[in-house]
Amino acid sequence: MTKPGKFIVVEGLEGAGKSSAIATIRQWLQQQNVQVVCTREPGGTPLAEKLRNLVKQVDNDEQLAPQTELLLMYAARVQLLTNVIRPALNRGDWVLADRHDMSSRAYQGGGRQLDEQLINNLRSTVLGNTRPDLTLYLDIDPAVGLSRAAARGELDRIEQEQLAFFVRTRQKYLQIAATEPDIVSLDASQPLEIVQQNIINALQQHFKGQADG
Amino acid sequence: MTKPGKFIVVEGLEGAGKSSAIATIRQWLQQQNVQVVCTREPGGTPLAEKLRNLVKQVDNDEQLAPQTELLLMYAARVQLLTNVIRPALNRGDWVLADRHDMSSRAYQGGGRQLDEQLINNLRSTVLGNTRPDLTLYLDIDPAVGLSRAAARGELDRIEQEQLAFFVRTRQKYLQIAATEPDIVSLDASQPLEIVQQNIINALQQHFKGQADG
Ligand SMILES: Nc1ncnc2c1ncn2[C@@H]1O[C@H](COP(=O)(O)OP(=O)(O)O)[C@@H](O)[C@H]1O
Ligand SMILES: Nc1ncnc2c1ncn2[C@@H]1O[C@H](COP(=O)(O)OP(=O)(O)O)[C@@H](O)[C@H]1O
Ligand SMILES: [Mg+2]
Ligand SMILES: [Mg+2]
Repeated sequence: MTKPGKFIVVEGLEGAGKSSAIATIRQWLQQQNVQVVCTREPGGTPLAEKLRNLVKQVDNDEQLAPQTELLLMYAARVQLLTNVIRPALNRGDWVLADRHDMSSRAYQGGGRQLDEQLINNLRSTVLGNTRPDLTLYLDIDPAVGLSRAAARGELDRIEQEQLAFFVRTRQKYLQIAATEPDIVSLDASQPLEIVQQNIINALQQHFKGQADG
Repeated sequence: MTKPGKFIVVEGLEGAGKSSAIATIRQWLQQQNVQVVCTREPGGTPLAEKLRNLVKQVDNDEQLAPQTELLLMYAARVQLLTNVIRPALNRGDWVLADRHDMSSRAYQGGGRQLDEQLINNLRSTVLGNTRPDLTLYLDIDPAVGLSRAAARGELDRIEQEQLAFFVRTRQKYLQIAATEPDIVSLDASQPLEIVQQNIINALQQHFKGQADG
């Protein structure tokens, strides 16, 4: 029987440096000779990418209800878990995810302040036993992250939220990171090379002797 | 303060006669001088109609996971409730719905046999206090309903399910209808004129003196 792969998630606010971190981690994993499948959320399957567009697009004619947003995030997630993440892990591939469930807890739970009971129920039903082996949470001041993200171009519907929304989202991120053992919190305000080195350190620490393909 | 409108739902398998019933009820309501807003599910807002297409389309490249289907149905429903149904009822309009929550209980709960706890939790969070005043359930043998529906043209992804799926769905419909007081079950295998007369009788019985605009 194939040894199941490991599931690594990168989390953080817009502009925290997730995409940059993914590139660093991917390179490190390839040096360890493991097969890597990269995903992003919401998205990562043709249908889930359509849901991503629906959630991110700015539509001045129709308000997206906060609960609709929550359910679309979990619809996209369960589709990705079922069709991509679980099959990859079962094959023995490693999965490297740009956002996953922690984003919903932080954005929909913290930012939008939606009902905890529904979120917890969605989590247990949708995620089942598939839980990240390691989550790297890149912590950044929202104002700094948003200014980095703004430099990339136009802001999407969620990026256009008020600062207070992202302050609540960051608070929830920090609160979760403080209580769960497989989440490592990194200071993402430091220069890129330092963040990269801290990422590699966290990977080496967490996967000592396990990334042997 | 405006008296809130009433919420009437028509339910049943494909080909049961829901669209025909909607036409009958709409006409009756207009004779009572009430403003009527007609909806259908999944759908009824621009975004919810996009979700309807995603759920109904046959995609040979990507299987829609049953849980994804469930969450998309509730995402579409909460969008419709928030943006159309609740505002209409608050204005004093009556809402006439071609399918609503009972469909998810029957199709996703009965047909797909998905987790009852998640469905109940979704229901209570998504529906809140907005519950139908009257649901007319049109009961039909799935084979009869499907042959009526097939005469309409190509079958969509859900209509293409095995007969056993619809047998389970009908069982769940009947089980719910038997236990909830605001659901009236009608024999939809009878000739159209008889079904129409039974619909009018049920409306007169249920809304005696209330449909006074
Ligand atoms: N530690 C860092 N210091 C300064 N700029 C950074 C740092 N990490 C990333 N950036 C830059 O900030 C912008 C957003 O980074 P990105 O990796 O796309 O973030 P995310 O994917 O989290 O939105 C990019 O232009 C990136 O080069
Ligand atoms: N009681 C009935 N007896 C025979 N045919 C019917 C009856 N009710 C509806 N039909 C026909 O069956 C087909 C499906 O009816 P429709 O109202 O579109 O069902 P639904 O909306 O529930 O799928 C239509 O062609 C309709 O004219
Ligand atoms: Mg990114
Ligand atoms: Mg119809």
